[in-house]
Amino acid sequence: MTDNVRQIAILGAGGLGRSAVRLLEQKNEFRLVAVGDSKGIAYDAEGIRSASIDALEPTGSVCSLPEIGRETDDAAGEVIALNKAGKVDAVFLAVPNLPNDFIPSLIVRFAKEGFDGVIVDALKRTSAVQQIVATEGQISDSKVLYVTGAGATPGLLTAAANLAAQSFAEVEEVKIWFGVGMKNWDTYKATVREDIAHMPGYDTESVRALSDADIERILDETHGVIELHNMEHADDILLERAGVATCEKVNVGGLVDTRKPVKPVSTSMTLRGRTFEGKVSEHSFVLGNETSMAANVLGPAFGWMKAGLELHDRGIHGLFSSADLMPKFVR
Amino acid sequence: MTDNVRQIAILGAGGLGRSAVRLLEQKNEFRLVAVGDSKGIAYDAEGIRSASIDALEPTGSVCSLPEIGRETDDAAGEVIALNKAGKVDAVFLAVPNLPNDFIPSLIVRFAKEGFDGVIVDALKRTSAVQQIVATEGQISDSKVLYVTGAGATPGLLTAAANLAAQSFAEVEEVKIWFGVGMKNWDTYKATVREDIAHMPGYDTESVRALSDADIERILDETHGVIELHNMEHADDILLERAGVATCEKVNVGGLVDTRKPVKPVSTSMTLRGRTFEGKVSEHSFVLGNETSMAANVLGPAFGWMKAGLELHDRGIHGLFSSADLMPKFVR
Repeated sequence: MTDNVRQIAILGAGGLGRSAVRLLEQKNEFRLVAVGDSKGIAYDAEGIRSASIDALEPTGSVCSLPEIGRETDDAAGEVIALNKAGKVDAVFLAVPNLPNDFIPSLIVRFAKEGFDGVIVDALKRTSAVQQIVATEGQISDSKVLYVTGAGATPGLLTAAANLAAQSFAEVEEVKIWFGVGMKNWDTYKATVREDIAHMPGYDTESVRALSDADIERILDETHGVIELHNMEHADDILLERAGVATCEKVNVGGLVDTRKPVKPVSTSMTLRGRTFEGKVSEHSFVLGNETSMAANVLGPAFGWMKAGLELHDRGIHGLFSSADLMPKFVR
Repeated sequence: MTDNVRQIAILGAGGLGRSAVRLLEQKNEFRLVAVGDSKGIAYDAEGIRSASIDALEPTGSVCSLPEIGRETDDAAGEVIALNKAGKVDAVFLAVPNLPNDFIPSLIVRFAKEGFDGVIVDALKRTSAVQQIVATEGQISDSKVLYVTGAGATPGLLTAAANLAAQSFAEVEEVKIWFGVGMKNWDTYKATVREDIAHMPGYDTESVRALSDADIERILDETHGVIELHNMEHADDILLERAGVATCEKVNVGGLVDTRKPVKPVSTSMTLRGRTFEGKVSEHSFVLGNETSMAANVLGPAFGWMKAGLELHDRGIHGLFSSADLMPKFVR
């Protein structure tokens, strides 16, 4: 690492993972050297190009990539080995968290097996992040610096809420209201399934049992738009953990249009609080409509990865969240 | 410090310093134990109450406070001594930075004389912060963790710009446009003088030479409203230092109404950028009109102080800014 470029691995080669490959290709400070999925791993010390990933079928595995891919049923173990060989500094988890304890158990493994670096997730569910928080002791005793909830919401908007809170003596409400648009749901199958699991009458287990045709029928009922209220999003426990507001004061909801690439509403975070002088007011953070979910999840995620790497260089390990750390701009 | 309450000192007992006393009185995690000004210092291990400070004349010195005040022409030296005795953990600098090298030389003194703790400023001018940055080597070699530009702008809005930048591959423009209202300018004399020094035809030296009557006459010409463009605000160098945008892409301006307590315009930060997918868009952060300058400067400042104390506890020293660190909510 003589040129001080950080060597990055991604676990997961679905829509989010593949977008991450395209984003990282534009960065000089980060080099994507490994991508793993359930069937294989691709490794290239010179940097994996998005052109090769884009040539894959939507459900294709990186194991089929010419020259750099090979089959394995333990990509995580391979990434740990690459880290021990000094060939991977940080990992972005772009795997779907189904079942709900998949990522927590993965982290415990990274910690136990001596991974010495930074891991970042973009988990959304409160229950999933709670399970991460439950592993805090094991992470603290390891060489891992872990950043959880480091996407858009939780993530960018959680950080904005923590920032906005600073003007106030007491926070009365944090409202996160998001708009997501996508041309079709095929590219973000796992994400849409997670969204549906937030709807009344569904949960992660019942959604797992649904076929793609079942999902299509559910979407047909609302012309492709999913409206969500009081979602189980981890912004609540991350802001409570940061001392900003108790969970019940944090409300997350929004509109997901699975058939149009335009956002049905601007994504925003509004925080109402009382200042030390007794005034009640609201700060707000509004995301530009032209920014995609991928841009708002992945940009911040790698920003937190850079911040984590700087702290890890100083010998700091343990569990952090998007509410605790300021992300750093990756050039 | 068995109860883990942090012991705080403030240097400067003008409008900002006195508001800080009121804010800190509502905090359980921080206890204000010392306030110093040019004529004296007040020290109370049990915590200085705002009632005593509020009883002072506007130009009165803390040296006249019954029981806790005494005369000294070296309050900074006293605060360093208190720190060495384990009685002060962190200092907020609420002194006006006139002349422009006053605070930089103060920091060098704290560093050289072995102050072991956190110092936070709410400096505004680019040139002043540049002088702070020039002392970075001396701060890094000391036991000081210093956070510069930790007010509202630079500060809260600089941090919001850094956060907003994360969604983009390249930042095209950061525009900070603020509104400040005050019932009368008497309470914030130093601040208004600094604002006038940003107007065409004035600088810090020429404003120092003006009498209060001269200031009144300048304000009369625009019915008390000061309109400012392309101000020399340190948001630019702090964002450049954080790798977000070069200085010329950062523009700070706004309206200051020195005769009405209502803000003439909502204070906002708008960042325009290009995503990794090539889309141009804007994120914005808007402050509630009811939040005062004091709330937006002091809340964040103490939030950064808490973040700094946590890093200092872990053995980290050196120079940080509002663009580098996530402030922590002080309860």
